[in-house]
Amino acid sequence: MKVPKAIQNLIESFERLPGIGPKTAQRLTFYLLHVPQEELDHFSQSVQGLKRGTLICSSCFTVGETDPCQICSDPTRDSSIICVVEQPLDVMALEKNGKYTGLYHVLHGKIDPLNNIGPDEIFIKQLIERIRNNELGIREIILATNPTMEGEATAMYIAKKLGEFKMQPFDSAQGKNSKCKISRIGRGLPVGADIEYADEVTLQRAMEGRSDYS
Amino acid sequence: MKVPKAIQNLIESFERLPGIGPKTAQRLTFYLLHVPQEELDHFSQSVQGLKRGTLICSSCFTVGETDPCQICSDPTRDSSIICVVEQPLDVMALEKNGKYTGLYHVLHGKIDPLNNIGPDEIFIKQLIERIRNNELGIREIILATNPTMEGEATAMYIAKKLGEFKMQPFDSAQGKNSKCKISRIGRGLPVGADIEYADEVTLQRAMEGRSDYS
Repeated sequence: MKVPKAIQNLIESFERLPGIGPKTAQRLTFYLLHVPQEELDHFSQSVQGLKRGTLICSSCFTVGETDPCQICSDPTRDSSIICVVEQPLDVMALEKNGKYTGLYHVLHGKIDPLNNIGPDEIFIKQLIERIRNNELGIREIILATNPTMEGEATAMYIAKKLGEFKMQPFDSAQGKNSKCKISRIGRGLPVGADIEYADEVTLQRAMEGRSDYS
Repeated sequence: MKVPKAIQNLIESFERLPGIGPKTAQRLTFYLLHVPQEELDHFSQSVQGLKRGTLICSSCFTVGETDPCQICSDPTRDSSIICVVEQPLDVMALEKNGKYTGLYHVLHGKIDPLNNIGPDEIFIKQLIERIRNNELGIREIILATNPTMEGEATAMYIAKKLGEFKMQPFDSAQGKNSKCKISRIGRGLPVGADIEYADEVTLQRAMEGRSDYS
């Protein structure tokens, strides 16, 4: 039996999504056959309008409805701290608790040579430009790429590239305010973890990243 | 940070699909942000055209491009056997090896009282009508609902409803051709299974369904 073209088309569209295999694609498609046409229309419009209804912020490159984005255009936020993340979703995760009040910079990826993604494919150059052009002075750059092999490599690369802006121990004594601190997001045991089951590298990071007991 | 409306819309649309939670919906949506607009348009059209490009066969209720469907309108198929399945996907699975040459009847569901689906919500009445109206005579009805609790209950209900058409041991001797055989799809150990790990019910079914060694 030939699968109807309309069904085959949608199965193929679903299959292109990450983490969705042929079986799931089939299941989703046949589920949608039982859904009212209005809901299909709504879904269809959401897909079509996804990119038309969003803008990439020209300053921090996150995804928003305006340019500059809501965060970059908020005067109450501390523009002297920039948190560098891989994806717009990371911004949302960090914004959830609302504790961080600085700005962001979204790289839209990580350096990943195995997938042919080099430093020029992600927004690293724009980050350096942004720091160079910032006349108000940036105090700190937090490298918050994921603690994976690629994320660590990306953080390392950026830290090296930002060497010229990095504050040396003697700088603050000399009153040089044009330099900034470069930090890496804390790595260690997540809340609720069990030391017994933690992997070696996480444990090592947790020991290295220990802080004064207050 | 407020999530852009366009993104929120698509996340919500994805979340409505079965087996897709909030995290997966987010991941899929942000993946689509990196996809060219033409591909989004194609996806969007596939969703919108899904039901417009398909028809439910008025005879067997499977999903196809024509009415009657490709199977029902095929003169080479044996119209004296009807295989009753729950979903159009089951038809495709059974058609894959091409060994079955009879017709189908798709119920579009199963009797599932916990989800408020009774016998009238699925195409059981239409199956009975179809058998009653069939003047050529149906020789066999294969109940191929899933071997789950609901599928078994559905098969049992249909078998009971079809009682009037059921061939009794003495019917064939009397030359009554208007009656038919009602069978249930074989249940037992699937190919590649391990008796050691099979559950009790499957083992019991496998013993009950044993056949002569040929």
